[in-house]
Amino acid sequence: MREVVILGVGMTKFGISQKSNLEMFVEAGLTAISQSNVEPKDMEALFFGNCLGDFEEGQLHMAPFAHAELGLPISAPATRFESACATATVAIRHAALLVGAGVYDVVLAGGTERAARMGTPLATRTFAMACQAQHESLAGLTFPGVFAMAAHLYASKYNIPLSNLKKAMAEVAVKNHKHGSLNPKAHFQKVITSETVLNGMMVADPLQLFDCCPFSDGAAAIVIASKDKARGLVKKPIYIVGTGQASAGPLYVQQDLTRVKARETACKKAYSQAGLKPTDIEVVELHDCFTIAEILALEGLGFYEFGQAYEAALKGETTFKGKVVVNPSGGLKAKGHPIGATGAAQVVEIVEQLRGECGPRQVEGAKIGLVDTLGGDFGTVCNLILRS
Amino acid sequence: MREVVILGVGMTKFGISQKSNLEMFVEAGLTAISQSNVEPKDMEALFFGNCLGDFEEGQLHMAPFAHAELGLPISAPATRFESACATATVAIRHAALLVGAGVYDVVLAGGTERAARMGTPLATRTFAMACQAQHESLAGLTFPGVFAMAAHLYASKYNIPLSNLKKAMAEVAVKNHKHGSLNPKAHFQKVITSETVLNGMMVADPLQLFDCCPFSDGAAAIVIASKDKARGLVKKPIYIVGTGQASAGPLYVQQDLTRVKARETACKKAYSQAGLKPTDIEVVELHDCFTIAEILALEGLGFYEFGQAYEAALKGETTFKGKVVVNPSGGLKAKGHPIGATGAAQVVEIVEQLRGECGPRQVEGAKIGLVDTLGGDFGTVCNLILRS
Repeated sequence: MREVVILGVGMTKFGISQKSNLEMFVEAGLTAISQSNVEPKDMEALFFGNCLGDFEEGQLHMAPFAHAELGLPISAPATRFESACATATVAIRHAALLVGAGVYDVVLAGGTERAARMGTPLATRTFAMACQAQHESLAGLTFPGVFAMAAHLYASKYNIPLSNLKKAMAEVAVKNHKHGSLNPKAHFQKVITSETVLNGMMVADPLQLFDCCPFSDGAAAIVIASKDKARGLVKKPIYIVGTGQASAGPLYVQQDLTRVKARETACKKAYSQAGLKPTDIEVVELHDCFTIAEILALEGLGFYEFGQAYEAALKGETTFKGKVVVNPSGGLKAKGHPIGATGAAQVVEIVEQLRGECGPRQVEGAKIGLVDTLGGDFGTVCNLILRS
Repeated sequence: MREVVILGVGMTKFGISQKSNLEMFVEAGLTAISQSNVEPKDMEALFFGNCLGDFEEGQLHMAPFAHAELGLPISAPATRFESACATATVAIRHAALLVGAGVYDVVLAGGTERAARMGTPLATRTFAMACQAQHESLAGLTFPGVFAMAAHLYASKYNIPLSNLKKAMAEVAVKNHKHGSLNPKAHFQKVITSETVLNGMMVADPLQLFDCCPFSDGAAAIVIASKDKARGLVKKPIYIVGTGQASAGPLYVQQDLTRVKARETACKKAYSQAGLKPTDIEVVELHDCFTIAEILALEGLGFYEFGQAYEAALKGETTFKGKVVVNPSGGLKAKGHPIGATGAAQVVEIVEQLRGECGPRQVEGAKIGLVDTLGGDFGTVCNLILRS
């Protein structure tokens, strides 16, 4: 496989937008293309992520329409990927693999979603379709319920008083909101306290309102190229040095909700491909759809022993100058979660961190970063490792 | 790129099924795996096609659930593709590219759809979401309308009396129903006459009921492997020698509905990769969602000059012992059209033709075949060339 780099990146502000999915994606895509010092006509393929365009806007088959709005050539195939929350990460992984293989030299990849405009109650019910419909959604299970079960299991498995775990989860929210307050593109840019979280409305016990990420509108895109193609185009190409993707199926085949087997398998593959280990990673964007999810991810990715990451949250080890800086963008929790765009936005943040462009939220001197995106209730995990 | 082969194939009967998308896909997938003399645990990835599972069954993110039902290993990523009617062909193309690249040695690819159970009127309105929502679907355009416009334009551009074109289109339907009558897996296995077509209910002038394919339930899957991996596993591996995929965007960027630019670009790429030309192709499964679509495809694929394929239909040149045998399976028209499974079923038919297993509908001695699938109103075309 050839060496693969990210040339340029683009993303819209996340939040509530008046724009359509196509308009948002074009904004992100043209920014990425222009930052790459190439033109739309140079793109050889589009790897496009979207989850619920048919429910949001009555739009299926969105990829060729995004392709047309961007002005890409007919010879550049536009392909839609959908892997629930991991949609864009999976699209980017396939783009990286095919550029690595020499099938394409330069491509655009990313995703878009207009989830906020649906309103949270409807979006929660609609997006519950990413659980297994026959056995999970029909029983009334939605994502807050899944992660609430994981939190209870975590507390009971490791003998942690639930009140302690709730304090640790609250610290995850406080940290990610603090990070988000430093990110002008975040959905929420307001600092909160642990009281804000612990006094919040109960959503699914023990998860309260501020334990849950929002649904957001937004899009993000990146240009991926072979190392040769990149030469002379940009000053700081960022290398994709490892990728992993794995599938764990529905809850009924998963033995332990505190151990996300798909993540353990996917990140092992990415680490091994990159020749790196968890202690090499300086900055991470990981899937904190709920505060407990960040704790599970810190363990699954190998940063902490199983059963110990909640203490890291309490001790503040995962913010700037900590052991590993987690979700400097604000994460899904504060930057926001436009489902099909989320993975691409995580990549955008890591790229800007490795280029040293993140201003007040810059992780000083970061050279190696990791992206972690979870799709559905642990059905899909996709990891990417980037380095400058 | 390494040489890539198809080991085994499987498909359900097409028609109206009581089974779920997952049940149908598992039937097709396990058949393909077992025919390949491998086991589910040997699969290294799943390339999964489905269009409307969220509307059909409230199921998004279906790929990892299909993966679990099939018993694939966690390390084998399951990825959903959606490219309207070309969904499964696009999934298969990506599988072939990544096996060719050496990323995987053996994978499963295919698709499933439960479109018939929706009922045709609702399915037609729902699937109209694969047109461009903002400019086309919202104006009331559905697919019969798109292809009706193409038929009128074809007649007017080439100065063909509409009644002559309608006779030619009727012959396409008669031929494909005749082929379907020889296929025990076809949705419709009944011979019809040209009067059946011309006396049919008007759907969208000039398209009558029998000019239109049905929505069907069904699934199809294939196992793709590197040539090395295939050695010793099956007697007649079928080679994937060329692939092409292109994107033409919505109708407002297309200048001439009788010339499907995405097809002309995609098949040129596939022919060139295979080192073959249209006259080398002995058997074709092409996208006859409407009878006029078969005529357009025959020209776009290079079998006939533009404006001349309607005469070929009248003269019966596209059936057994003709110039090129088109849709021996019955095509979308008679074999049926489970949207996200269609491309995989086309591949299944070509594979069985090249292996000489098609009994009464066998194209004698066929060694080279082509698959053509159109997604949406000309937004996506994907072509595959296979040889024995």
